[in-house]
Amino acid sequence: MTQHDAVEVITAKRDGHELTDSQIDWVLDAYTNGVVRDEQMSALAMAILLNGMGSREISRWTAAMIASGERMDFSSLSRPTSDKHSTGGVGDKITLPLAPLVAACGVAVPQLSGRGLGHTGGTLDKLEAIPGWRAALSNEEMMAQLESVGAVICAAGAGLAPADKKLYALRDVTGTVEAIPLIASSIMSKKIAEGTGSLVLDVKVGSGAFMKDLGRATELARTMVGLGKDAGVRTVALLTDMSTPLGLTAGNALEVRESVEVLAGGGPADVVELTLALAAEMLAGAGRDDVDPAAVLASGAAMDAWNAMIAAQGGDPAAALPTARETQVVVAPASGTLTRLDAMAVGLAAWRLGAGRAALGDSVQAGAGVEWHARPGDAVVQGEPLLTLHTDEPERFDRALESLAGGFDIETGAAAFVPSPLIHARLD
Amino acid sequence: MTQHDAVEVITAKRDGHELTDSQIDWVLDAYTNGVVRDEQMSALAMAILLNGMGSREISRWTAAMIASGERMDFSSLSRPTSDKHSTGGVGDKITLPLAPLVAACGVAVPQLSGRGLGHTGGTLDKLEAIPGWRAALSNEEMMAQLESVGAVICAAGAGLAPADKKLYALRDVTGTVEAIPLIASSIMSKKIAEGTGSLVLDVKVGSGAFMKDLGRATELARTMVGLGKDAGVRTVALLTDMSTPLGLTAGNALEVRESVEVLAGGGPADVVELTLALAAEMLAGAGRDDVDPAAVLASGAAMDAWNAMIAAQGGDPAAALPTARETQVVVAPASGTLTRLDAMAVGLAAWRLGAGRAALGDSVQAGAGVEWHARPGDAVVQGEPLLTLHTDEPERFDRALESLAGGFDIETGAAAFVPSPLIHARLD
Repeated sequence: MTQHDAVEVITAKRDGHELTDSQIDWVLDAYTNGVVRDEQMSALAMAILLNGMGSREISRWTAAMIASGERMDFSSLSRPTSDKHSTGGVGDKITLPLAPLVAACGVAVPQLSGRGLGHTGGTLDKLEAIPGWRAALSNEEMMAQLESVGAVICAAGAGLAPADKKLYALRDVTGTVEAIPLIASSIMSKKIAEGTGSLVLDVKVGSGAFMKDLGRATELARTMVGLGKDAGVRTVALLTDMSTPLGLTAGNALEVRESVEVLAGGGPADVVELTLALAAEMLAGAGRDDVDPAAVLASGAAMDAWNAMIAAQGGDPAAALPTARETQVVVAPASGTLTRLDAMAVGLAAWRLGAGRAALGDSVQAGAGVEWHARPGDAVVQGEPLLTLHTDEPERFDRALESLAGGFDIETGAAAFVPSPLIHARLD
Repeated sequence: MTQHDAVEVITAKRDGHELTDSQIDWVLDAYTNGVVRDEQMSALAMAILLNGMGSREISRWTAAMIASGERMDFSSLSRPTSDKHSTGGVGDKITLPLAPLVAACGVAVPQLSGRGLGHTGGTLDKLEAIPGWRAALSNEEMMAQLESVGAVICAAGAGLAPADKKLYALRDVTGTVEAIPLIASSIMSKKIAEGTGSLVLDVKVGSGAFMKDLGRATELARTMVGLGKDAGVRTVALLTDMSTPLGLTAGNALEVRESVEVLAGGGPADVVELTLALAAEMLAGAGRDDVDPAAVLASGAAMDAWNAMIAAQGGDPAAALPTARETQVVVAPASGTLTRLDAMAVGLAAWRLGAGRAALGDSVQAGAGVEWHARPGDAVVQGEPLLTLHTDEPERFDRALESLAGGFDIETGAAAFVPSPLIHARLD
C-alpha cells in the first residue's frame, strides 16, 4: 500500500480536492491500525462534512471500510438472500414481521441489527424482550439457521468493517455525524460486508427521522443505492414517512406484541402496508417476484417462520411478554379529529420512560414505552384515553409528559383531514 | 462558568453560526482541563478554518486563551515597554540587533521567543550558538534584566496561554494550522499575556513566508492589530517582503555574526533598513519617537546593550562563534544579473544542512546554514562563488543542493532589474 501522511490527506480535503483512491485506502487502513490518530480523523471527517465527497470517493471509502475487516459469504446457501436496512424511526418494528415473512416466501434473510441509542429503538432490544432470546450468534450458527429457518436477526460480529465501528464512535462525539458520505458509507460497508445478495433500504424522512426533509433523505438514498450497485448488490430504496410514528406502539415488548399481531393477520394498517411493500421489494431483489407476500402472510406460514426463528435463538415464542409495573393514561383534551401525532415527541417519551438508552452500555426496560389509541385521521373524544405510558419507574412519567407537550393536534373544525403518504418515493 | 457541551459548540460552528462568548470561554477552559478532548478540538478547529470567525469571536477566543494561564506585568519598570513579533522568515535575524538597539534608545524590550520548526529559524536557536548563552530565565531574572540592561530575549515560560500551547501542537498534526483566526489568536494571546505596553508586528509575505500572498497577509495583520487594540496594547503591523531571504546568511551562528556586523555599523543594507524601520515603530509605540534609532546605532550604544544582554544570560559576546566542519561552494552557472533568489529554496537548504529541526526536540547545528554572496540586483560572474553551504555532516549537501535547484535566476539580457520593496505596507 502506498504510504501517505495524515496531514496531506486532511489538507487535500480541506482545500476542496478529491481524495485519490490511494489516499483513501491508506487513511482508513492507517486509522484502523492506530497510525492515523483520532484527532486527525475527526479533522478529516469535518472537512468531508463541509466540503463533501464525489461518488468515486464515497465508493472507494466504502470499499476501504469493507477491506478493514472480514466479509461474509452466503453463496453456498440453497436460497437467494435479501436484507433490509432502515435508517431508524419511532415505532419501527418492521424487521420483526418482515424477516420471517420473506423467509416464508423462500428467500433467506441474514439481518444483522443493532441496539438503539437515543429516541429510535433498536431491533435487538425489542427481541430481547422475549424470554430466553439471545442476539449473539457465531457465523456458523447464523449460517445453519439461515439454511434451516431462512431468517436470522442477530448482532453484527466485531469482525465486519472495524474501521466503521471506530469511526462511528468518533463521529458521535465530534459533531460529524450529519455527513451524507459518512452516513452512506457506514451503512453500506456493513451491509456489503455482510454478504447479502440484494438489499432494500427504508430511508425515513420526517420529524422522527434522522433526515428531516425529503431533499436530504433523497440524496442519502441515492448515494446508498449507488454504493450498493457499485459493489454488485441489487439495491433499491423506499423513502417512507416518519413524521408520524409507525403502528400504535413504541417500546420493546410493546412492539413485539404488535409485530405478532401482524403475523397473525391483524395489526395496524400502516405496519402491514409497509411490511408488505418492503417484502415485495426484497422478493423482487432476490428474483422471487412470483411470490405474493400478502398471501403468504394470510396463510400463517410467516407466523410459523417467526416461531422457528425465535426458538432457534433460545427464545420462547409462546411465553408471556414482560409488562411495565406502572402505567399512566393521557386523555384527549378535546373532542375532534387527531390531525397530528409527532414521531419525535413520541420517540422521546418512550426513551424517557426507559425503552431506550442514553449511553452505549446502559440497559433498557423491556416493558417501557408508549401506546397511542388513535392515529392521525381518527376521531377522539374528550376525556377518553389518547395515550398510555408504560414504565417500571413512575418518576419517569413527568419528563415523558414534557416530551409529549405540543406533540399532537386535535382539530374540531370541519376541514377534511388529508393523510400524508406512507411511501413517498422509490429509488433504484 | 456556564456549562456547554463539546458537540453543541462544534455543530454551531460547523453550521455557520457565531459562537457565543459563553461557548468560547467554556470550550477553551474545558480543553485546557482535558474535558474537551483532542479529537473534539480538532473538529472544531477544522470548522473554524472552513467557516471562519467574526472579529468578536476572535477577540473572545484570544481573551479565553490568555485567561487559561498567567499574565506578566511590566508596569513597575521605570521605562515603557515595546515588543516585536515576526511571523517568521528565512534569514530573519532582525530581533538580534533590534532588541538591544531599542533598549539603547530607552525603551525596555521583553522579547519572548521560540525555537524553529521547519524552514524558518528560531531566535533562541540562533542565540544558543553563542557559547554559554541560556534561553531559560525565571520571571524575576527577566524583570531584573529588563531594569538593568533594558532588553531580554528568552524562552516563554510554560505558564503563558497554556491553551495555546496545547492547541498549537494539535493544529500541527491535524491540517488546521492555516486558519487566520487561529494564527492571529495564537500569536496575540502570548504577546498580550506577556504584558508588553506596545507591539510591532512584522508580517512576512512571499515564497519563504507562511503567507504567500499580500491579501492573506493583510487579513492576518489587520486581525492581529485589531486584537492588540481590543486588549489595550498599542499595535502596528508592517507587511514586509519574504520572497527573497533577509541579509546574506541563513543559519544560527551565521546570523549572529551578521547581526553583530549590523550593530557595529555595517551589515547588509536590507537588514539595517528593516531593523531601523521596526525600531522607529517600537519607539513610537512606547511614546519615544523623539529618539532617532539610526543615530543610536551609529553611536555604538546598541552594541554596548547587545554585549550586556548576552553577558546577563551567561553568554560570552567576545567568544568565537562555532563554524561548521564542512563547506561547499556553489558557483554562478552564468554571468549576468541575479534577478531572483527564492526565500523558500534557501530556507529549505539551510534546514536540510542542519540549521533547523524536523521535529520538536531535535537538536540543531550551530554552524550549519547557507551564505549567499550576491543579492537580487547584483552582478555575478560565471564560475565565481554564488552560495556557500555549511554543515557538520557532508552527506547533507546533496539534499540541500536539491532544494536550491531552480531557486535562483541569472539574466544576461539588458532588461533593467526592478527590486521589490522591502516594506509593502503599514497597518495601524
